[in-house]
Amino acid sequence: MGVEIERKFLLANDDWRELADPELLRQGYLSSTRERVVRVRIEGHHAMLTIKGPNVGASRGEWEYPIPLADANELLDGLCEQPLIEKYRRRIMYAGMVWEVDEFLGANFGLVVAEIELHSEDQPFDKPDWVGEEVSDDARYYNANLIRHPYSQW
Amino acid sequence: MGVEIERKFLLANDDWRELADPELLRQGYLSSTRERVVRVRIEGHHAMLTIKGPNVGASRGEWEYPIPLADANELLDGLCEQPLIEKYRRRIMYAGMVWEVDEFLGANFGLVVAEIELHSEDQPFDKPDWVGEEVSDDARYYNANLIRHPYSQW
Repeated sequence: MGVEIERKFLLANDDWRELADPELLRQGYLSSTRERVVRVRIEGHHAMLTIKGPNVGASRGEWEYPIPLADANELLDGLCEQPLIEKYRRRIMYAGMVWEVDEFLGANFGLVVAEIELHSEDQPFDKPDWVGEEVSDDARYYNANLIRHPYSQW
Repeated sequence: MGVEIERKFLLANDDWRELADPELLRQGYLSSTRERVVRVRIEGHHAMLTIKGPNVGASRGEWEYPIPLADANELLDGLCEQPLIEKYRRRIMYAGMVWEVDEFLGANFGLVVAEIELHSEDQPFDKPDWVGEEVSDDARYYNANLIRHPYSQW
């Protein structure tokens, strides 16, 4: 098991847009409860099956396995909860840390969030000017919840 | 994707007991809905993550991935729906086919079922004398349902 520690923010302006090329992510859920998440994700030509435990503060257990791309497409289109989540991800280096900026498509079009992965919950980091309000504790922004209650319906 | 075609039976007598050595299986579910099942199973020193689609007749889609034994133990004890399912499995060859006889433990103690995996739904096969009534269509016997409503409560 790994432990995923993430903090999530809204964006303060559009300056992030030119800082990296976007990559299309396509993901869906085989389970998306509070207790256990099972996610299928395709990013470029790679596919992963990821299992996540419940959130405990900003941390959660995570287990990740590569799976064949053909399997991932079968699972996404035939078995995962619908609608899928599609988003453009940009990875932007800032002050030695990688920020992931996700620009959502489909039913969540208009939503953009920035995430940073940390080694500990109290790890200090520098915030770029284009990063705004923190929403780590707001469950509406969990990817799993964006399926049942997408941004377009907020 | 593979397709799993299974038929399930009760046992007519105890003659199966001496025909193979039992192996202990320990399994749990990250999802166990009608639409999608995600199962973690340890059998001997091997662990598998298995995804199954909905039942369509005796068939269902199946995707299976080996995972590290340590991960499987973490997932079974920390994340899967409780209680887990534990059972002794015997694999018995009969007339060129493998029968799997599962003898359940814990909350399902007393339940024994025999399963045969087929290549097509109408594939003919010989039934040993120790195989009894077919229960393929009885949802109570699905492993996922044996967690929520175990045999001891029938």
